[in-house]
Amino acid sequence: MRGALVMMLATCRALRPAALRFAARRRSGAALTTMSAAAPPRKKVKSIVEVTPDSVIGETVTVKGWARTVRAQKALGFLEVNDGSSFGGLQVVFEGDLVSSLKGVGTGCAVSIEGEVVKGGGKQPIELKASSFELVGGCESDYPLQKKRHSLEFLRSIAHLRPRTNTLAAAARIRSTLAQAVHAFFDEEGFNYVHSPIITTSDCEGAGEMFRVTSLDGKELSRSSEKDDFADDFFARSAYLTVSGQLSGEAYACALGDVYTFGPTFRAENSQTARHLAEFWMIEPEIAFADASGAMDNAEAMMKFVIKKALSDCKKDLEFCDKFYGNNELIDRLTSISGSEPFLRLSYTDAVSLLQEEIAKDPKKWQFPDVEFGTDLATEHERWLAEVHAGGRCVFVYDYPRSIKSFYMRDNDDKQTVAAFDLLAPGVGELVGGSQREESYDRLVAKMTEFGLDPEDYWWYLDLRKYGSVPHAGYGLGFDRLVCYVAAIENIRDSIPFPRYPGSAQF
Amino acid sequence: MRGALVMMLATCRALRPAALRFAARRRSGAALTTMSAAAPPRKKVKSIVEVTPDSVIGETVTVKGWARTVRAQKALGFLEVNDGSSFGGLQVVFEGDLVSSLKGVGTGCAVSIEGEVVKGGGKQPIELKASSFELVGGCESDYPLQKKRHSLEFLRSIAHLRPRTNTLAAAARIRSTLAQAVHAFFDEEGFNYVHSPIITTSDCEGAGEMFRVTSLDGKELSRSSEKDDFADDFFARSAYLTVSGQLSGEAYACALGDVYTFGPTFRAENSQTARHLAEFWMIEPEIAFADASGAMDNAEAMMKFVIKKALSDCKKDLEFCDKFYGNNELIDRLTSISGSEPFLRLSYTDAVSLLQEEIAKDPKKWQFPDVEFGTDLATEHERWLAEVHAGGRCVFVYDYPRSIKSFYMRDNDDKQTVAAFDLLAPGVGELVGGSQREESYDRLVAKMTEFGLDPEDYWWYLDLRKYGSVPHAGYGLGFDRLVCYVAAIENIRDSIPFPRYPGSAQF
Repeated sequence: MRGALVMMLATCRALRPAALRFAARRRSGAALTTMSAAAPPRKKVKSIVEVTPDSVIGETVTVKGWARTVRAQKALGFLEVNDGSSFGGLQVVFEGDLVSSLKGVGTGCAVSIEGEVVKGGGKQPIELKASSFELVGGCESDYPLQKKRHSLEFLRSIAHLRPRTNTLAAAARIRSTLAQAVHAFFDEEGFNYVHSPIITTSDCEGAGEMFRVTSLDGKELSRSSEKDDFADDFFARSAYLTVSGQLSGEAYACALGDVYTFGPTFRAENSQTARHLAEFWMIEPEIAFADASGAMDNAEAMMKFVIKKALSDCKKDLEFCDKFYGNNELIDRLTSISGSEPFLRLSYTDAVSLLQEEIAKDPKKWQFPDVEFGTDLATEHERWLAEVHAGGRCVFVYDYPRSIKSFYMRDNDDKQTVAAFDLLAPGVGELVGGSQREESYDRLVAKMTEFGLDPEDYWWYLDLRKYGSVPHAGYGLGFDRLVCYVAAIENIRDSIPFPRYPGSAQF
Repeated sequence: MRGALVMMLATCRALRPAALRFAARRRSGAALTTMSAAAPPRKKVKSIVEVTPDSVIGETVTVKGWARTVRAQKALGFLEVNDGSSFGGLQVVFEGDLVSSLKGVGTGCAVSIEGEVVKGGGKQPIELKASSFELVGGCESDYPLQKKRHSLEFLRSIAHLRPRTNTLAAAARIRSTLAQAVHAFFDEEGFNYVHSPIITTSDCEGAGEMFRVTSLDGKELSRSSEKDDFADDFFARSAYLTVSGQLSGEAYACALGDVYTFGPTFRAENSQTARHLAEFWMIEPEIAFADASGAMDNAEAMMKFVIKKALSDCKKDLEFCDKFYGNNELIDRLTSISGSEPFLRLSYTDAVSLLQEEIAKDPKKWQFPDVEFGTDLATEHERWLAEVHAGGRCVFVYDYPRSIKSFYMRDNDDKQTVAAFDLLAPGVGELVGGSQREESYDRLVAKMTEFGLDPEDYWWYLDLRKYGSVPHAGYGLGFDRLVCYVAAIENIRDSIPFPRYPGSAQF
């Protein structure tokens, strides 16, 4: 049934050669390095994001994209074309003989239109008055994205087509802008970008939740797994997908100063929630000669920087997200968070006192009313701290009990807490987790032993403490959660093009 | 033995609290968004890259880094400190009582020095006259990076420490600069950055060479692999590590226009060469409404852009690479390639004629003297085209025989060739491979069948040709090879922090 062929496509094919030979379009019109003399001459093709400013009125341009809506009356026709370059489409007006060329053209068709940019009639500030039209690619009648609202769940089942919808296209552009902003921030701050490895043979961090990577198949795999001996495997031992680039980031920070990683990480956790993916992207900066406070400074500056960038570069996308998913509070919240007011900083101990006080007023309102030193804060606690106590600001909670945190975090002098921090954001909870790392060889070995780890497994990590050890700190930011936060996306599966979760790795 | 503790470290620990509480340093001095009021006051800590310009002479600064060399006489001491922020270190001069603080300080120690920037005595344009000194972290005497040249092979066995050497630090900074430049280029060109999935269930492209990803263990894994039924596995079927993001890139190009991916890809190929990694990073742009020529334009502009950026931002690193590994020809070559002269463009058919002519002159000089239409060009052929025929320029060879290329490439009208191209670089051979994609549903299905593929497996990829199909083209650039090319690195294992290859996924 998928193999069915539709006549329309056969018809369009004859039109194609003329549609060829265009070069890439530019966002800013900035001059680039010389193109080859061998390249063919260019048509004046513009992306819609370049056409929309008023300055181009009167200009003749060609735009190429996909029809969102088509209406044709006798002597007048309208086609809204969108090319993905921005949220907005461009309304194209057809007059006279050209109207008949819209016959058979519907939602989803790929089109190329030459015309003059004119002032718009109704709500549109500008529109295109078509002078020539070409159907580049037809669209079969079973196109699943007809002009109506679709559930996000349905759209996940057609993840290859969903970026053609307003919501998912906005999410994709916001994601791209945020990723670019992350790189720009760290570049400006003098950090080196490090590609930490994806395949790792250290199963130290949460072994049970890691994916195995193997090149064995059939009998070899069967034998190796039964004997739990993967000496014949590709890497001559058991290999896994990384859960964090931190340890390699530390090695590079202890040589280059400030570094960051930005890449995919993996967790084989069987959780079907709106907050978890099996494959997700993480940003992990590591700062030499810094303590937890320095890392918080950096995380705060980074958050403000990337949110400001999204606000300026994705205005229309965010307005759409705000209206449909953000309760009309999204842009205000982002503007406020990226403004000059600093994030609140609160010790874990103070946070617990505040929560105890608040819970005592009406314990029944809380799902987890028992909060004391040593409690791993639940999402309801984190959200109260950010949304109520901090009045909608982001909050750093720092100096957590050492018993609920990782072995590599630096003990504070009180011997009860470690120099760890979480960044809690209103509406979403934890976005960032970081710490100062234990830089003393002795104390690190002692803590590994205390936590039931074998120091031998970490020989190279310990080496960093033997040879010119320095205080250093860093954090991890779940990038997909950041996208959810900025774009008011409820389900993390809609923040990434092709989400991977239990039972699902299609496309 | 690795657990051995050295007294020096214990001694330094007392010194540490004073070394804490610095914030991240900036490359450009550009003002950032506000820091929190809660942050501690900053010391005037500078990275060495900020200290080296003449403008800071007379200023008192603190620098933090690692000692490369230490020489102490009676009343005069010298310490060269490097913090990884740039190739060059800073010479620090100690006088009077301060000289004694260098006792026990050697190569590899982490240090913090306050002093005045003064004009240098000998070869150094500037140096630091120390006013106070702090040993931040000592270095055990078995430190493997004593001041001497080490083989690159030896350094691979200490990949966690090798970024502390001149060569690997230069490689890491050049890699970071190139990665940043890639993002900047595509951002300027209006491309959206797409995170294509790493885990895939489509084993269509080169099944045998893919890594399997599984969360099964022991008996489950054994049973599933014997029955070749992975329905119980995490994704309810067999899952693999991706070999390319192209197909998902195409889905997004057909919605957003121009997109690119930049992420890790994997090949479970048992090749122990200087040109292959099991885990490597790829850049894959996909351009809607473009043909092969448009993709070549983009690849050429991208190459020139990123090389120019490396030349301007990594000058000292590249000078070092040129001197030690580049035959003193590297910078000239890069300058020429990134200049205004366009890359040569040559059809495969013409390339074959040229090669036949050249080989006929002296066939014994060639390892593969039999070249005819249909031959997959060998590295010696590619290098002759770039190095001799093109006189050291980059060369695009295009319109390859369809029989030696992939199913998704668009057939040319001659029915013999496809609109595919490779970019051949002098000294290294193929860097980029790209093509126009087949946009016709009919022709794509026919070609899949011809190539022995089941169109059902590609249902979603074919959908892109059913619903508003457009001409589109793209290419793949092996990022690690680009780093090798730009930094004159001979073995690809030295281009990436922690290389993965058969038998090796340490660290």
